[in-house]
Amino acid sequence: MSGRLTVVGLGPGAARQMTPEAAEAVAAADILFGYAPYLARLPERPGQERRASDNREEIARASAALEAAVAGAKVAMVSGGDPGVFAMAAAVCEAIEHGPAEWRALDVEIVPGVTAMLAVAARCGAPLGHDFCAISLSDNLKPWPLVERRLALAAEAGFVIALYNPISKARPWQLGRAFELLREKLPGSVPVVFGRAAGREDERIVLATLAEADPARADMATCVLIGTAETRIVPRAGRSPLVYAPRSAPAP
Amino acid sequence: MSGRLTVVGLGPGAARQMTPEAAEAVAAADILFGYAPYLARLPERPGQERRASDNREEIARASAALEAAVAGAKVAMVSGGDPGVFAMAAAVCEAIEHGPAEWRALDVEIVPGVTAMLAVAARCGAPLGHDFCAISLSDNLKPWPLVERRLALAAEAGFVIALYNPISKARPWQLGRAFELLREKLPGSVPVVFGRAAGREDERIVLATLAEADPARADMATCVLIGTAETRIVPRAGRSPLVYAPRSAPAP
Repeated sequence: MSGRLTVVGLGPGAARQMTPEAAEAVAAADILFGYAPYLARLPERPGQERRASDNREEIARASAALEAAVAGAKVAMVSGGDPGVFAMAAAVCEAIEHGPAEWRALDVEIVPGVTAMLAVAARCGAPLGHDFCAISLSDNLKPWPLVERRLALAAEAGFVIALYNPISKARPWQLGRAFELLREKLPGSVPVVFGRAAGREDERIVLATLAEADPARADMATCVLIGTAETRIVPRAGRSPLVYAPRSAPAP
Repeated sequence: MSGRLTVVGLGPGAARQMTPEAAEAVAAADILFGYAPYLARLPERPGQERRASDNREEIARASAALEAAVAGAKVAMVSGGDPGVFAMAAAVCEAIEHGPAEWRALDVEIVPGVTAMLAVAARCGAPLGHDFCAISLSDNLKPWPLVERRLALAAEAGFVIALYNPISKARPWQLGRAFELLREKLPGSVPVVFGRAAGREDERIVLATLAEADPARADMATCVLIGTAETRIVPRAGRSPLVYAPRSAPAP
C-alpha cells in the first residue's frame, strides 16, 4: 500500500503564512480534498486532481479521502488555519476509528498551521498573552446549553476567549446571545476584537467593547477575541492601538 | 525614524515549520534579540548582530529591543512557537505602554507562528479537536491559587487543557500538583500527552493516562495536553495510536 493521507493546515490565508512543510505536502499530492474556498487558494498543478466540497459533510469528505489513499493515491486534505482546531483532523480521526481496518493501517500525517486566533492576535498586539480558551460557537454538533456553560465558566476563570465559527446564515443568533451572557459576567469595558481574514487582502480588524460589541461585525471568516478585565489598550498617535493581556495577574 | 521592531514566531523548531513571513523578518533584521536557544536555531548572517538573553528578564529584553529600534535599527525579537502565546509579544506591548512616547510611535509588527500545542496535537491526531484552553503553569507572574482555580474550572467546563511551562528547576512541583487536582475532577482514564520538542530531531511524544501521568516525563521543552472523558484513543497495528477529541458532544 503506497498511498497516504496528509491533513494540511494552510494557515490564515496569505501564502507567506503557510509553512514550507504545508506547501510541500500540497505539492506532493496526487489528489487534493477540501472545502472549495481553501482549495481556491492553491495554484492549479498539472496532473493534480482536486475534489472540492462544501463545509458540511466532513465525515463523508474524510471517508472519500481515506478511500483514495487506500487505493494508492497520495492525498492531501486541506484546512484553513490549523487542521486540529475546529477543522478536518478530528473528522479524519473519527472516520478512521469507525472505518475499515485498512484505514487504521494507512500512513496518516497531520501538518500544523497558524490558526486564526494567533493571526488575529498578532494583528492587534498580544490579546492572548495570558491563559486563554478557544470555543466554537457552532451548535451543529454540540448542544447550545453546553456552549453557554463553557462561556460562563471561561469568564469565571478569567480566560481570554477566542470564538471560532461565530456566525453563519444557519446560525444567526448565537454570537449575540454569547455577548449577552458574557455581559452578565464581565465588565462592559472588556475589549472585543473582530478579526476577519487576518493577513489577507480583505483583512478587517475591528476593536469594540463588550458593552457595544455588535454581532453584525462578524461573518463566517471572523474570529472574535474577548478579553478580560485585565486586558490593556495602548493608544498610539497615528497607529492602531495595541491590545494586550498582561503577563502578570492579581490573586483570585 | 527608520527603525522598526518585528516580534517573530519561529514555530515549534523545525525550519520547515517556520513560515516564510517569519524567515523573511529574521533575514531583514540588523539585530536579533531573543532567548539564546531560539537564536541558536537561526543561521549566522554577515552584518547581522545578535543579542542573546536568558529566559527571564523579558521586560529588560523588550526595552533593549525597543531602544535599538528607536535608534534606527531593524530589530527582530524572536520567540519559539507563536510570540503571542506565553512569549515575547505581551512583554513588548507592556514595555511600550509604560515606556517613552517614542516607543508608541514606532513601527511594531508581530509575526505569528505555529505554537507548541498545535505541533504536539498534530503529532498524535487531533486531541484539541473540540473546545480547549491553554494555561501556563508558571507562577512567576501570577499566584498559584489562580492557576488551580483555572484548572478546576477548565475541567468543569470540559475543555481539553494544554499546559505550557509545565516544569522547571525553579518550579519542580507545580505539574504534579496540577495532575493531583485534575484527578479529583476527571476520570483517571483521561488521556495525557507529553509532547516534547514536536517536529524536532529530539522529539518525544508520550501517551499516558491521567491516573498514571508522571510529572517527571515533562521538562521545559514539553507541552502537556490533558484530554477529557470524551477523548478517544484509536489503536493502530504497527503505528502509534491516534488521540482525538470528538467533534460532537453530549448535553451537559
